[in-house]
Amino acid sequence: MTDKQWIRERLAALRASMREQNVQYVIIPTGDYHNSEYVSDFFRTREFYTGFTGSNGTLLVTDREARLWTDGRYFVQAEKELAGTDILLMKMSEEGVPTLPRLIAGQYREGERIGVDERIIPIHTVELLMHALEEKLHTKMEAGNVLVHMDPAEGIWHDRPCLPCGRVFIMPEELAGERTAVRLQRLRRLLADERADGIVISRLDDIMWLFNIRGRDVECNPVALSYAYVDGVQAVLFLQEGAKTDELETYAQAENFRIMEYGALAVFLGQIRGQTILLDPVYTSEFIHRAVLKQNSIITGQNPTTAMKAVKNERELDAIRKAYLMDSVAVTKFLCFMKQHPDVTALNEYSAAKCLDELRSRLPGYLELSFPTISAYGANAAMMHYEATEEDNAPLQPEGFLLVDSGGQYMTGTTDVTRTIALGPLTMEMIRHYTAVLRGHLDLAMATYLEGCTGRNLDILARQPMWEMGIDYKCGTGHGIGFVLNVHEGPQAIRWRYDKTREEAVLREGMLVTDEPGIYLAGEYGIRIENVLLCRNKEKTADGQFMDFEVLTLVPYDLDALDSSALTEREKEYLNCYHRRVYDEVSPYLEEGEREWLRHAARPL
Amino acid sequence: MTDKQWIRERLAALRASMREQNVQYVIIPTGDYHNSEYVSDFFRTREFYTGFTGSNGTLLVTDREARLWTDGRYFVQAEKELAGTDILLMKMSEEGVPTLPRLIAGQYREGERIGVDERIIPIHTVELLMHALEEKLHTKMEAGNVLVHMDPAEGIWHDRPCLPCGRVFIMPEELAGERTAVRLQRLRRLLADERADGIVISRLDDIMWLFNIRGRDVECNPVALSYAYVDGVQAVLFLQEGAKTDELETYAQAENFRIMEYGALAVFLGQIRGQTILLDPVYTSEFIHRAVLKQNSIITGQNPTTAMKAVKNERELDAIRKAYLMDSVAVTKFLCFMKQHPDVTALNEYSAAKCLDELRSRLPGYLELSFPTISAYGANAAMMHYEATEEDNAPLQPEGFLLVDSGGQYMTGTTDVTRTIALGPLTMEMIRHYTAVLRGHLDLAMATYLEGCTGRNLDILARQPMWEMGIDYKCGTGHGIGFVLNVHEGPQAIRWRYDKTREEAVLREGMLVTDEPGIYLAGEYGIRIENVLLCRNKEKTADGQFMDFEVLTLVPYDLDALDSSALTEREKEYLNCYHRRVYDEVSPYLEEGEREWLRHAARPL
Repeated sequence: MTDKQWIRERLAALRASMREQNVQYVIIPTGDYHNSEYVSDFFRTREFYTGFTGSNGTLLVTDREARLWTDGRYFVQAEKELAGTDILLMKMSEEGVPTLPRLIAGQYREGERIGVDERIIPIHTVELLMHALEEKLHTKMEAGNVLVHMDPAEGIWHDRPCLPCGRVFIMPEELAGERTAVRLQRLRRLLADERADGIVISRLDDIMWLFNIRGRDVECNPVALSYAYVDGVQAVLFLQEGAKTDELETYAQAENFRIMEYGALAVFLGQIRGQTILLDPVYTSEFIHRAVLKQNSIITGQNPTTAMKAVKNERELDAIRKAYLMDSVAVTKFLCFMKQHPDVTALNEYSAAKCLDELRSRLPGYLELSFPTISAYGANAAMMHYEATEEDNAPLQPEGFLLVDSGGQYMTGTTDVTRTIALGPLTMEMIRHYTAVLRGHLDLAMATYLEGCTGRNLDILARQPMWEMGIDYKCGTGHGIGFVLNVHEGPQAIRWRYDKTREEAVLREGMLVTDEPGIYLAGEYGIRIENVLLCRNKEKTADGQFMDFEVLTLVPYDLDALDSSALTEREKEYLNCYHRRVYDEVSPYLEEGEREWLRHAARPL
Repeated sequence: MTDKQWIRERLAALRASMREQNVQYVIIPTGDYHNSEYVSDFFRTREFYTGFTGSNGTLLVTDREARLWTDGRYFVQAEKELAGTDILLMKMSEEGVPTLPRLIAGQYREGERIGVDERIIPIHTVELLMHALEEKLHTKMEAGNVLVHMDPAEGIWHDRPCLPCGRVFIMPEELAGERTAVRLQRLRRLLADERADGIVISRLDDIMWLFNIRGRDVECNPVALSYAYVDGVQAVLFLQEGAKTDELETYAQAENFRIMEYGALAVFLGQIRGQTILLDPVYTSEFIHRAVLKQNSIITGQNPTTAMKAVKNERELDAIRKAYLMDSVAVTKFLCFMKQHPDVTALNEYSAAKCLDELRSRLPGYLELSFPTISAYGANAAMMHYEATEEDNAPLQPEGFLLVDSGGQYMTGTTDVTRTIALGPLTMEMIRHYTAVLRGHLDLAMATYLEGCTGRNLDILARQPMWEMGIDYKCGTGHGIGFVLNVHEGPQAIRWRYDKTREEAVLREGMLVTDEPGIYLAGEYGIRIENVLLCRNKEKTADGQFMDFEVLTLVPYDLDALDSSALTEREKEYLNCYHRRVYDEVSPYLEEGEREWLRHAARPL
C-alpha cells in the first residue's frame, strides 16, 4: 500500500457514486454554505478527498482524472501535500493553465451532468460555468439541466464531524457603537436606492455585524452559521436552535427582528412572492438563488452590509486602538524574548509560536487567535501560509530570519501583525532584501491620496523598491480586517492587478487595511513586514478631500536587519517618529528589562 | 442689438427647422463622421451655434432652452465664450450636473423625436441615450423610432466651409517599418481571434496607420477623411476622389487593397451580407451601424488597429528618436533665447510662440505643428488649453512663470513637450510648487513596473508630491502619442481615476506616453513639465518581465525655479544624469553661445 492509498480509495468510492447517479463531473470547492474563506471541519470535503489543507482550492473529479486548482500562496504546499496522489495541481493565474470552467467546457459533451452541492456553490461560479459551456457548445444552457445537486461526502465520509453550533453572544453597544435597529434602517435605505424590496444575506461576518452578535462556529472567526432576510417591514435572523440565548431573544425584541431556525430558510423563502430581491452572486448559493427565483425577480450586486461594515465607527475605532496597543505590547514582549534569547536552538518554530500565543492569551478581553500563528524559520517562510505543528516544525538557528505573522481576537477588536527578525548573522543580500521590504512598507504608510483612490492606485508605492530589484511578491499588499470578526474582510484591498470578480472599493475614512509587502525566495527565506493602517481624512482643499493613514500597530522593526543608508531622509524621519511612538505608548506596559531592550530596539537612526 | 444676438438668431432658425420636422430635441456633438478629437472647419456646427471654441462640447437644443456640456479643461473658457448668450453651461463630472442622456430622459415624453446627424453620433452615445430613456420610461425603446436624422447646419449655416480634401502621401517603408499587406494580415488574424469576419474602421488615424498614408484634412493631424473595410479576402480604403494620387494607386495594387470613393461606403456596405462585423462603438457612427446591421450581425469592441498602432516598431522608434532629438534642439534654442533675453517686455505670449514655431519650421522633415503652441504667461497658464492669438495675448514681464507646451509633426515623428520657465524672480511658493511638479515628473520617469501594469497603477508616482501639499491637477498625467499622427492617441494613458468608457490598456514595450504633471492656480499661475517616455522591457526574472521608461525628450529643466534641497538623492542623481545626456546629445547642434548657456542650464546639482 503506497503512501496515499487512502486518497485513491476515497476517490474510487466517489466515482462509484458518480456512476450510480449518472454524473460525469463533480466539483468540490472550498467553502461552506456561505462561501466563507475559513470553514469548520464539517465542510472540509475537499481536504477529505485530496489531503490538501490550504484555505483555497477547488477539486474536479471525473471518471478519468482529478485536478485541484489553488492560488500562488499555496503552490509549494499543494505540491507537497498532493505528492503520492494522482491529483493534478492546477496553478491558478499561471500562463497556460485553464480555469476550471474552461477545462470542463473543453471536455464536456452534450447530455453530461455535473454534480455539485448547490448549497455550497455560489451563483457566480455557476454563471462562469454556464458561460464557458455556452461558448463551447454555441447554445443556451440551463443550469437546471446540467447541474445535479449532491453532497460528495455523503455515504463516503463516515467519520465526518458535526455541523458546529456554538452559542452566540451580543456585542455591547458601547463597543459596537450602533444598534441593530439603526443598522437595519440604514440597510433599508440602501436597498431602496438599489430598487430592491428585500435581501437574503449569506455572508456570515456581514450577518454578525448587522445583528451585533458574534459566534463560535469557525475557529479564529467569531461567526455563527446563519442567514438573514431583510425587507421593508421585517428582518429575520436564521440561526441554529442551539446557538440562541435568552439574551439574544430579548435583544431581538428590542431591535425589532425575528429569529428563526437555520434550516427554515428554504420554507421561509417559499413564502416570499412577487418581490425584487438583492443577492450577492459571490456569497449566495445556487440553492438560495433557485428558491428565490421561483416567485420573485432578482437583482445581483454586492451586499450593501459589506461596505457598511468596512467603515468602522468612532466607538469601534476607540476599542480597536486599545486592542492594537495591547496586542502590540504582547508582540513586543515576544520580540524582546526572541532577540534576547541566550540560545535560540533551544526553541523551534512551534514553541516560539506558543510563547507568543501564551502572551496574547493573557491580554484583557482575549477571545482566541484571529488565525493560527505563522512562525516560519528560514526557507519555511518562503511559503506565505506555512503553519508549523507540534510534530512538524523546524528548529531555530542563531542566524537568518524568523518570520512571525499573528493576530488575536479580543472583545475590542481583531489584530494582524507580521515582523521578520534576524536571529543572528545575515547575508548582504538578506539585508538588501529586508531593507527593500521595509522601504515599501513605509512608503505605503506615508502615502497621501485623494478621496476616490482604490488600493490599485496605491499598491505601487509598496512594490516599487522590490520591483527595482526585479522582485515581486505574488499576492496583494493588503486586505481589510474585521472588528471582532474575520481577519480578511472586503471590499477594500491594496493590490495592483485588476480582478473582474472583485469590486474595486474606494478607500474611505474609517476603513482598515493591512500594509504587508514581502520577499519570498523559495528554498531560501521569506521576509514580510505588516502593520494595520486606518484610512483617515487629512486636509480638504479646493482640489478635494485628501487622505492619509494612521498606523494602528505599534511594534518595533528589527533595525539589525536594516541598511539604513538605503533609506531616503523622509523614510528615516518617518521610521524614527514611528519608533518614538512605539516606545512612548508600549513601554509603560513592559517590565524594566523589556523597556531597556525596547529603548535600544527603537533607537533613532 | 446685444453682444451675442447672432447666436440667438441662429438658434431661432434651428428651432423653426425643428418645428417643421416635428423634432423636440437636437443634439450637436463635437466631432466629424469619425469622432475625431480635432475636426476641420466644416464640422464646427456646435461652435457655429454657441461661439464656444473648445475641442470638447455637446450642445442640446430644445424649444425652450439650449445647454452645452464640456469638461474641466474648458470650464473657464466656456464661461467666457458663452457670456451674453442664453446657453446654459453644464460642467461635466461636477456634482449634481446630469449627463446629457439623463437630462433628456428627465424631460422626454412618449412620441417625442430627437434630431441628430447620424453620420456623426457614435453608436455608444446612442446606446447611452436609449438606456437612459428606457430606465425612465420602463419600456424597450427603438433608436429608429426616437432618432431623426438631420444635419443641424443645413439651410442655416450659409457660409459653411467645404469638406477638406488634401492629397494623401505614402509613409516610406524605411520609416513605417511595416508594409500594409503585413498589417492587413496581422489585423485579419486578430479579427479571427474575435470571431469576426470583417471590420469597418472609422477612426482616421487608425486608417492612416493601416494603409501607411497620411493626409492633410485636419490642422495639426495628418489624416485624410476616410473609411476602411477589411475582411478575410478584401481590404478597401474609402477616400475622397481629390485625395487620391497615382502613387497611392500603385501602392494599393502592390499591397493588395482597393480604393473606393469616400461617399460610396453606404452602397458598398449594402452589398455585404451574412457576415459578423466588428464595430468600435466609440468611433463608429449610428449611420454605419444601421447600414451594417441590415444584413449582418455585429460584435462591438475596440478596433484592433488602435492597440496595434500604439506599439511602435523598431523602424518607427529609430525615426522617432531622431525627431525628438531635433525637436529638443529647437526647444532648447528657444529656451536659451528666452532665458538670455535682455528685455522680455519686448515680447508677448504670441510673439514668443511664433519664435518657437519658426525654429521648428526650419527642422528637417518638418510638416506642421502637432497642435497650436500653448504659450501662457502668469495666470493664463492656469487654463490648461489656453491659446494666445495675435490680437489677444498677454505681454511678458521679467518675473513669474512662462509655460510653453508645443510639438511638431515631422516625417520622422510627432512630438509634444512642455517646459515652464522663470522669466525673473519667483515667490517661495512658486519654487515650492515647481519643485513638486518636477519631482512628480521625475518619479514617474524613474519607475520600474511589472508587465501587466496600466497607467492607473503608475499615476500616483507623479501625483504624490502634489497630493502631499493638498494640490491636484484635474486631468490625466499622460497620453499616448502617434507616429506622424495625432498628438493624442490611445489606448494607453496615465491617469488614476477609473473610467468605464475608456479601455484600461496595459503598458507594452514600444508604447509612448507623456509624463506631464502640473499645478494650476486659477488667477495666479500654471506649471507643467512634460516629456515623452517610451515603455521598454527591463530585466526578466523569475517574478516576471519588468519594464521601465526611456526618455525621448531632451530639453533642460529650469533649475532657476527649483529648490534642489527638496529632492531625494535618487531624484538628484537621475536629474543630473538626464541633464548630462541633454548636453551631450543636444549641444552638437547648437551655436557656440547657446552651447555655453546649455552647459550652465544643465549644470549638475
